[in-house]
Amino acid sequence: MEFSEYFPVWNKLTPGQQKAITDSLVSRAVVKGTVLHDGSTDCTGLLLIKSGQLRAFIRSREGREITIYRLFDRDICLFSAACVLHSIQFDITVTAEKDTELWVIPADIYRQIMEQSASVANYTNEIMASRFSEVMWLMEQIMWQSMDRRVAAFLLEETSIEDTDCLHITHESIAHHLGTHREVVTRMLRYFQREGMVRLARGAIQITNRAKLKTLCDE
Amino acid sequence: MEFSEYFPVWNKLTPGQQKAITDSLVSRAVVKGTVLHDGSTDCTGLLLIKSGQLRAFIRSREGREITIYRLFDRDICLFSAACVLHSIQFDITVTAEKDTELWVIPADIYRQIMEQSASVANYTNEIMASRFSEVMWLMEQIMWQSMDRRVAAFLLEETSIEDTDCLHITHESIAHHLGTHREVVTRMLRYFQREGMVRLARGAIQITNRAKLKTLCDE
Repeated sequence: MEFSEYFPVWNKLTPGQQKAITDSLVSRAVVKGTVLHDGSTDCTGLLLIKSGQLRAFIRSREGREITIYRLFDRDICLFSAACVLHSIQFDITVTAEKDTELWVIPADIYRQIMEQSASVANYTNEIMASRFSEVMWLMEQIMWQSMDRRVAAFLLEETSIEDTDCLHITHESIAHHLGTHREVVTRMLRYFQREGMVRLARGAIQITNRAKLKTLCDE
Repeated sequence: MEFSEYFPVWNKLTPGQQKAITDSLVSRAVVKGTVLHDGSTDCTGLLLIKSGQLRAFIRSREGREITIYRLFDRDICLFSAACVLHSIQFDITVTAEKDTELWVIPADIYRQIMEQSASVANYTNEIMASRFSEVMWLMEQIMWQSMDRRVAAFLLEETSIEDTDCLHITHESIAHHLGTHREVVTRMLRYFQREGMVRLARGAIQITNRAKLKTLCDE
């Protein structure tokens, strides 16, 4: 597949802009676990995903984490190129959750084009608005939802992403997604097990009553 | 003062775009407490503040609130015109915290100009990135900071906004800013009083040891 098929506003670019991107574009294949962008590294560039899965999260000084959003095929990661927008004043870490193929668009090239092209600027706007909406949704979850619902919702989301009823994920990793402590997750999963919603095994969580988990989320 | 002096990219607009804005612009003066935009009302328009103070917040079904950001002179409120960006999928309420004078730019006019003008689109980008940064800062506060630090930081911020050491604010109102319960705020303020940092009176909080409050925040 060509980059032009993945980049929605490709046809709105001038031939010169298309060439600038094509000439500077880097194609990368990274294995699961690779850190693609770290809060401290300034301006990695925009990441456009061919296939795979990325996770963007923030980290506390004590090493706690919370997932801000995840990116899938055809998604673009803007905040790995924070220098494109002067007003972005936060640090995000981006890692590969699965083996991932992606393009990196150098930040300075993108910024130049965005300054000239209303289409690219508006496309960037829509990406940011979309991430903003995800963060606001997360904020509402954190503020108003209890942890049992958040764990239940996370399990359902994971099974949907992985297309399986048996998740291979540690309690600590769930805690890092949700911004809580491992002990809290373990306690919650044991409660779910007692209620017949999941079965716990070493390194795996089997969903045994999806309907009941859903009811918990929707309450 | 003229609108053109408040709108940073005015000189980047074509005469036609300037006329479209001037012809459709509405100047409003609202008293403290006015609801300018409610999650349910779709597309109020962009608000550009001449003077005064606005508060943007989200609300739970149970009526709990948390302040997302505040807007002061020359600030622009984008999310009161969510329809300008298709990808904005969250509801925000905007109220006047003080008597406020402002301009309303109709959303459809703004969107038309933004679609044509890279300058306006990039300006919009910077506004959104700036609000996004505020929300991420808030997220970090909620996730990693204890409530005593958040109350202390709020008191210091308020005294700086109001330029006084004596705040006329209810405990409930502080709770609504911070997304917590009144009882939590009251307990915290009593603790601050015992530690000699504030003195509480009916409807007022007097800061008596600013340095100690600051130390608490910076710990």
